[in-house]
Formats: sequence, C-alpha cells, structure tokens
Amino acid sequence: MNDAFLKACAGEPVRPVPVWIMRQAGRYLPEYREVRGQTDFLTLCKTPELAAKVTLQPVDILGVDAAILFSDILIPLEAMGSGLVFSEGRGPVLDPPFRSEADLDRLHCIDPESEVPFVLETIRILREQLKHKVPLIGFAGAPFTLATYLIEGGTTKSFVHTRRLLFGVPALFASLMELLTDVTIAYLSSQIRAGAQAVQLFDTWAGILSREEYGAHVLPHVKRIMEELSSLGVPRIYFVLDGCHILESIKETGADVIGLDWRTEISRAVSRLGPEVVLQGNLDPGCLFMQEEALRRRVARILEQGREARAHIFNLGHGIMPEVSPEKARLLVEMVHELSA
Amino acid sequence: MNDAFLKACAGEPVRPVPVWIMRQAGRYLPEYREVRGQTDFLTLCKTPELAAKVTLQPVDILGVDAAILFSDILIPLEAMGSGLVFSEGRGPVLDPPFRSEADLDRLHCIDPESEVPFVLETIRILREQLKHKVPLIGFAGAPFTLATYLIEGGTTKSFVHTRRLLFGVPALFASLMELLTDVTIAYLSSQIRAGAQAVQLFDTWAGILSREEYGAHVLPHVKRIMEELSSLGVPRIYFVLDGCHILESIKETGADVIGLDWRTEISRAVSRLGPEVVLQGNLDPGCLFMQEEALRRRVARILEQGREARAHIFNLGHGIMPEVSPEKARLLVEMVHELSA
Repeated sequence: MNDAFLKACAGEPVRPVPVWIMRQAGRYLPEYREVRGQTDFLTLCKTPELAAKVTLQPVDILGVDAAILFSDILIPLEAMGSGLVFSEGRGPVLDPPFRSEADLDRLHCIDPESEVPFVLETIRILREQLKHKVPLIGFAGAPFTLATYLIEGGTTKSFVHTRRLLFGVPALFASLMELLTDVTIAYLSSQIRAGAQAVQLFDTWAGILSREEYGAHVLPHVKRIMEELSSLGVPRIYFVLDGCHILESIKETGADVIGLDWRTEISRAVSRLGPEVVLQGNLDPGCLFMQEEALRRRVARILEQGREARAHIFNLGHGIMPEVSPEKARLLVEMVHELSA
Repeated sequence: MNDAFLKACAGEPVRPVPVWIMRQAGRYLPEYREVRGQTDFLTLCKTPELAAKVTLQPVDILGVDAAILFSDILIPLEAMGSGLVFSEGRGPVLDPPFRSEADLDRLHCIDPESEVPFVLETIRILREQLKHKVPLIGFAGAPFTLATYLIEGGTTKSFVHTRRLLFGVPALFASLMELLTDVTIAYLSSQIRAGAQAVQLFDTWAGILSREEYGAHVLPHVKRIMEELSSLGVPRIYFVLDGCHILESIKETGADVIGLDWRTEISRAVSRLGPEVVLQGNLDPGCLFMQEEALRRRVARILEQGREARAHIFNLGHGIMPEVSPEKARLLVEMVHELSA
C-alpha cells in the first residue's frame, strides 16, 4: 500500500509529497454525476456500496495518495434527532432550528453502530477495496460548525442566530457544544474502529469567531476531541477555513496535522507555529482555473514552502469546485508528485 | 460642530473616542423601517429628501459622532450600464452578469453629476442639515468588491465566477478593475466636491484573496484611488472585511484610516503596522446581543487597545445586524463615550 500520506501525518518528510483533494469525490467528476443521477444525495450517503464506489473514483482517476470517506458532515445531526433535508439549490435544511433550551431535549448523543451503521459499513467495504492502494481518511464536522447548521437551520451568511445564542445565551450554547463534542467523539471513534486510518475534523465556520470567542467557546471542545481520540492511534487532522487569526489556538488543540486554507501562507504558519508542525494545504481552489504553466509555478511555490514544515501534505485550501475540469485536477496531482520527487 | 471624528481621522488622539456604526441607518431602527415601508430600497436611495432623512436618524437617536450617507455600494454599477434589481430575500441581482470581453462594452465610466445626481444632492441637503451636528462620511464600494457583484451577478458564497475570471482570464479581469477604479475615483471625488467630509472605501470581499492575489489584482487599484483622492483634502478610510492576512498590504494602500473587522485585534494590528497607524473598529456585531455588563467589558477592552494606536475611531467590525435592539446600540455609543472620557 502507498503509505506516503500516513508517513507525512506522522511527521516524516516524504518525497514525493503526498496529495489529496478536499471534495475529491464530487460533482466535478462525470463518474460521480452519473451515480448521483440515479439517486438523491442522502440516499447516496446512506448506501454503503454507492458511497464506497464514489469514494474510490478519484483514487483511480486522479491518482491521489489518500481516499476520504464519501459522506456529509450533517449525517450525525439527523441521527441526533434533527430534521435534515437536502434541497437542490437551497442546500441543507435542518428543521426546526435550534434556538432554545427545549431544543436540547429533542437531541441525543448518537450510538454510531446502531444509528449510522451505513457509515461504518462503507468504511469496512472501502478498507477491503483499498487494501493495496491508499489509506482511508474518516471525517466529521467539528462541534462549532455543526452548531451553526443546527442553530441557523442550514447555511447562512450572517450567522446571526449563532451569534445571538453564543453572545446572548452562552450557557445554552455551551450545553449544545458539549453534546456535539460527545457526538463527534463517539462518531470518529467508531469510524476509527471500523477501519479509518486517519481522521479529519472540518471546522468550516470557526473562522468567523475572534480569537477570544474561539478560545472560550470552541478550543476546549476541540481539545477534548483530540485528547479522547489520541489513544486510538490514528493521525488527527484539524482544518479550519479562514483561521489565520487563530492559528496559535488551532495548534493548541493538539491535532497532529493542521489544515490551512489559501489565505494562511505556509511559510508564515511555520514561523508562527515552529518548524515541528505538520501542515496540509493550501492551493486556492480557484488556481485550478489557471493555465498549466501558471498553475505549475503556484504548485512549486507551495511545495517549496512546505519544506519548511516538519512534513507537508499537499491539498487545496478548500473543497474543489464543481466547475473545475477533472483533467486539471489530475494534472495537479501529477504536478505535485513530479515537482516534489 | 462635533469634530471629534475628523480630528481622530487626522491622527489626533481625541477623548472621548468618537464612534459611529456601520449600517447605522438601517433595518434595526423602527424609524428607518417606517420610511422603507413606504418605498422600495432603490427609490429610497434615489430620493434625496428620504435618503437624507434616514441618514440623520441614527445621529439623533444614537448620538454617534459621524453621519454616513445612506446609499448602496451598487448604485454606480447601475449608472455604468449594469442591470440592478433588489429583490426581497434574494438580495441584489445584476443581470446579465459580467463574464466576457463583450460585457466590457456594455459598461462605461460614470459622470456622477449627470448620472447619479441624487447622491450628490443628498450630500448637499445633509451638509446643510448637519451644520451644527456631526461630519458627513461619503462612501463607495472598492473595485474588487464591485467586480464580484458584477461577475457573480449578485451575492455569492463560492465566488466561483470571480475566481474563474481572475485566475483564468487575468487580462480581462484587470480591464474590469481599471474601469471600476476610474468609476470609484470619479464617484468619490464628486461626493467630496458635493460636501462629504471623509470617505470610506468598503472592500467587503477582498479578504477572500490570498496576499499574493490581493497584491497583484487589488492593491495597485486601491492605491491609485487613494492617491487620486489625496489632493482633495478629506480623510480616506479603507475597510476590508476579514483582512487579517493582508494587513500589511492594506496599509500600503496609503489610506489615512484602516477599518478592522472583529477578527483582527487592534493590539496585533498596531504591533504589525506600527504605532503611527489610525484605526477604526472593531467590536463583533454579535456582541450587541450580550448583557450590558459583559458588553461593557468588551467595549472597555477595545478602547484600551485603541490607545496603542495613534488615534482610534470606535465602530463595529461589520454592519449592525437588523435583529439588534436600537436601545442596545444607543447604549453602546454611550458606553464608548463614558469609558473613554
């Protein structure tokens, strides 16, 4: 098996540098769209054979060094007792939204084996099918990010309800975060026991918080997740979108690998966090619209910066966009391998 | 006239610290909603008597130290030849969106006196009515932020079309930025000649760019605006949402005052930019959901940090939310004045 990704996670400066792409199983691939054309999104997530199939597509098509479970961060919220509907165009809807003490009673901590068995079954299938290929990454949404979906009832631009709860009713917000932290620990532990060889915690929206708020309302929970998972022996990656202003706090979580978006330069991250840090990232997803030569210069620069860290895993700074050509994505993976050989 | 705001803009460390609030004329005020109930948003922007009326409301109700022209950053885009409709719920729609060379031919640089006379007339009315009260701030959207609306055809979360143009067709993107820069210079110069005593350039979306992209595609244009306006003798404020990672570049624009959002701590900004900087900001708008005593501690801390800068103008880190109570906003202004007296 190609273990470059796992070695890098463990802090070994592997050459060529391993690469995978956030949302690598997704709409930009015609092979994915074909599967999706036959089923709705939630059914795809809940059907192990299909979820495994789309997970494998980018491994074969792009030649990435890791597979990541195909699923959605909101899956555990439905299992907790929240309504969850994916509507075309409008995105996910969680109804009713979480707004008061009474909403806490509607939600419970999940038992993954009985409540999201399809996720664990997908992992078992994938480990079998990936045996001679690449490692499998499991994942979960981080508590704050999940909380925003529950509180807003879906996606948002203003985060007004989240802010109202966090600033206005901090004790209730803390109770929700406690529960979501318990859920995340149970969920990721089960994924690891089922065979996930690394886990990534996605904190997509934590970057809307100031350092003070992040430190008070998020950091202790993420720290607890990292601590609880540490004995399970797989690398823990923590990705925060737009986390430049809280980089030192992100390190404090104790994650093995820190995922950076395109706005936090790797060189600067190393000078702020020290050369012992293992970093993942961080090409702007928009760079995949560049011409080949311009793209190559960008990739080379990121790889060069990556050498300053203890180890580097190449990735985009956020998910690949549906409008990108699969050929360009394949070229990216090839470039990373060639330029870092 | 209360000139605390203008003195602070000029670098004088005024006590009490002057304060105004982004979107202080807006939906959180019942008095504003009453006016809006009788007219649609664009008509309100284009009717000088009404626009002046809502501009004055927060001056009288909250006791802020500056008035800011009531208008919308998209007004000049319509004058340039773009379609512009504000639809309830969906936000602004600019149709057709800017996607190719041919779209450049549809747009022209504006002559403010003949194409947006209502804005200049509003300013003239306001200067008369504000004579013994507070200074008037004019404003415009910055070229990159305006470009995103033109290219996306409205608001967006992914900025995919903007990225596609910027990374994929950089020469066309640059032409659009040139044109928007010319428009912004013409627009702000006219506002100043009509009586605006300071101007704020809003670059709401520039923070989505990495430092490299900002430096290549945005900085030269904002610099040109600042240079062209410098001879007109009024302070130039530049506000970038989420600009922590490009703070040094923001300083390079030459703006007199740098507006910070709540994620860029004032102390850190001072240590990165030097003590000669004049800063505006930066309470998280969500803090207006806090209880009074907690809010007071936040305000005190920001004021304390503000003393490290050459001068400080208190503001929120982004626009006030419609869900905030006017009483809390009034209390905030009072607190700032009391705590910094």
